[in-house]
Amino acid sequence: MAELVGNLLVAQSGGPTAVINASLAGVVQEAGRFECIEEIYGGSNGILGILNEELIDINDQKAKTIEGLKYTPAAALGTCRYKIDFKKKPEQAARDMDRLFEVFQAHNIRYFFYIGGNDSQDTSHKIHLEALKRNWDMRVIGVPKTIDNDLPHTDSCPGYGSVIKYNAATVMEIGLDVGSMATDDGSCCIVEVMGRSAGWIAAGTVLARNSEAAPPHIILLPEVPFKQDRFLARVKEVVEASGCCIVVVGEGLKNEAGEELGADETRVDAFGHPVLSGAAEALAEIVEGKLGTKTRTVKLGYAQRAAAHFASFTDANNAHACGVAAVKAALEGRSGFMVKIVRGAASNGSTQWSTGLQPLGDIANVEHFIPRDWITEDGFLPNEKFVEYARPLIEGEVKFPLEGGLPKYVTLEHVMIEKKLAPRS
Amino acid sequence: MAELVGNLLVAQSGGPTAVINASLAGVVQEAGRFECIEEIYGGSNGILGILNEELIDINDQKAKTIEGLKYTPAAALGTCRYKIDFKKKPEQAARDMDRLFEVFQAHNIRYFFYIGGNDSQDTSHKIHLEALKRNWDMRVIGVPKTIDNDLPHTDSCPGYGSVIKYNAATVMEIGLDVGSMATDDGSCCIVEVMGRSAGWIAAGTVLARNSEAAPPHIILLPEVPFKQDRFLARVKEVVEASGCCIVVVGEGLKNEAGEELGADETRVDAFGHPVLSGAAEALAEIVEGKLGTKTRTVKLGYAQRAAAHFASFTDANNAHACGVAAVKAALEGRSGFMVKIVRGAASNGSTQWSTGLQPLGDIANVEHFIPRDWITEDGFLPNEKFVEYARPLIEGEVKFPLEGGLPKYVTLEHVMIEKKLAPRS
Repeated sequence: MAELVGNLLVAQSGGPTAVINASLAGVVQEAGRFECIEEIYGGSNGILGILNEELIDINDQKAKTIEGLKYTPAAALGTCRYKIDFKKKPEQAARDMDRLFEVFQAHNIRYFFYIGGNDSQDTSHKIHLEALKRNWDMRVIGVPKTIDNDLPHTDSCPGYGSVIKYNAATVMEIGLDVGSMATDDGSCCIVEVMGRSAGWIAAGTVLARNSEAAPPHIILLPEVPFKQDRFLARVKEVVEASGCCIVVVGEGLKNEAGEELGADETRVDAFGHPVLSGAAEALAEIVEGKLGTKTRTVKLGYAQRAAAHFASFTDANNAHACGVAAVKAALEGRSGFMVKIVRGAASNGSTQWSTGLQPLGDIANVEHFIPRDWITEDGFLPNEKFVEYARPLIEGEVKFPLEGGLPKYVTLEHVMIEKKLAPRS
Repeated sequence: MAELVGNLLVAQSGGPTAVINASLAGVVQEAGRFECIEEIYGGSNGILGILNEELIDINDQKAKTIEGLKYTPAAALGTCRYKIDFKKKPEQAARDMDRLFEVFQAHNIRYFFYIGGNDSQDTSHKIHLEALKRNWDMRVIGVPKTIDNDLPHTDSCPGYGSVIKYNAATVMEIGLDVGSMATDDGSCCIVEVMGRSAGWIAAGTVLARNSEAAPPHIILLPEVPFKQDRFLARVKEVVEASGCCIVVVGEGLKNEAGEELGADETRVDAFGHPVLSGAAEALAEIVEGKLGTKTRTVKLGYAQRAAAHFASFTDANNAHACGVAAVKAALEGRSGFMVKIVRGAASNGSTQWSTGLQPLGDIANVEHFIPRDWITEDGFLPNEKFVEYARPLIEGEVKFPLEGGLPKYVTLEHVMIEKKLAPRS
């Protein structure tokens, strides 16, 4: 195989995570070891910045800053939700593709790594096919990233272990707090977490349960249709037995008609859009209204995916390994693959992690849900099969420096490469 | 002074904090050193459990468990919001007071420590006066506790340093996350924190600001009347300059008419009570409705006061010191005081903490607000005077053991003392 000499471009896409920068560090650190990779560029704000020829000079960064990315949350290169959509906007998509290759060619990009979720793997796949078609010799490898944990073929997705570690600790702490407050008629606390269509994030909080009676008592998963009467009966039962009931719900919980509970059609904003007060608020209204039980809500929102102060070392390590593996695969001549995480067992029984490759064509538009037999029969909690799966993902803590009592995260300066093209039309 | 021989009773009251158990540990560990203190009892669920003669045998606990209280959140003895209210319910209050002294006498309670906020200090004060009146020789000392930081005369309140450390780290992380997501028209994220009448908790997130442009960009304090037009103008300004605007708001934010923003009169529950969707949701509706800026909310709720996984060592240390000081004061013959935290400077310029005593009569029903000259002129942020005050409170991290990637907090078994009285009438 002839050595491919040229520049590398890496970009980040979609919602940030606590460890998406660890994958970036993996790419940059591994790439720095090979002379055939001449320059290392970062796309500013994902594909959007590449279309605008906004490339960040990563060679210019200190090695210490790159190392610091391993514990710094958010997307250091910036991110976007821009989608090259050949189905809905074929003309725009064709123009975008032309433009991307103008940029790749102008900057001699021979290695392209896109760190992201489902949509981004789809984008990487299209770019890979397009490079073949255009006869532009470029290695395209997707690096997985999503707190939603819904990518297929990979054991798990970088970002997921950290979000459930933080959420489980938080639910454990909330459970202790609420459980220690005596009330006459019991109380309920509903914690809303992310996850619009798959229940992986909500399910992960089951790890907080260190005994049969411990919270969370109910986890509402989109995989199990929500039935109000059964839910209320269960809340009542738990409150009577334990004094308080801790409920975890994913933001996208739907009723039996398939409508999101958080959407309140009676309140609209100035543009006539319904105001989404959230699934937890909607459930609290139901519990207080029907049972009269004092109910409080917590909505972790962005806090959960950015919580690098309590990130999983296993997760950060896997995220870094995926970045490293992407570069290794590209240097071996591979293109059109996503790196996947593979779980194995060491001889002492502990979990051993490695990486593999999966064709990008297998990934796009396939969503991975929690198997039904990983959920208790009554549907209110994930069972021991889920716990066995999830437990190793939260092991270990990421160390980070502190200053004045707060985390000291690094900042990747956005030193831009000089543009060579006319502005995007 | 004659040595007072008898039993000790300690109880916890009001909302739990990340460090309220550190104060309990301080009381128990210090009391264990003195022979005149024969038995150490804990009131189960504060004053409520004492009225019901529900006393926990603390002598029976392992020393390791007591030590573990220093890093365990929530109220290990249980807590309540029960108030002995001579103004509104004089007959009930008189009956309660009789009953308390029946319990004190039946169990020879000679040392009484109540760990709590404003209401609890008031209760301690009344018990102290009543003991004098009844000629029951008992030393009563209040131990301060409240994340609200609104007790007067003490430098700060145990629980406050930890809540603002966690909240500031969280806002810093959210700021990085939101700031890294490119959007066409900018975005806004509103983080709702606790604090109904004083703005100390919201103000504390200013510590996340490590540069002039860093989030949080706006902190809405109850000390400054909320004016919607000025708020929207500021959000617009920040979004135009920085791309995103991070707003922190206390749950009790009121409009100019003095009405809580979070109360939505148009939605009522089954009992006709207005549904409190929260200050953040109300503000999000305003920002999205009037500016059309994409806005997301985070409501930290109970998570913030229970977040022992990122508690302040300074705070936990002060909380423990308050417990120790309460016992010392009582053994010196003092009664009718609250322990207060005193700030000093060491010769090397670092902050040096000690404790003092303040008569309980000075504490009750006095609320401590942020001085106006600790807030910027435009009212949108606390200024450097506040930062100078708050910074030392979040220094250091509390170490805690982990198991399987999650905190391993201790459980204080509630081994109950045999009752000697007839049930409370």
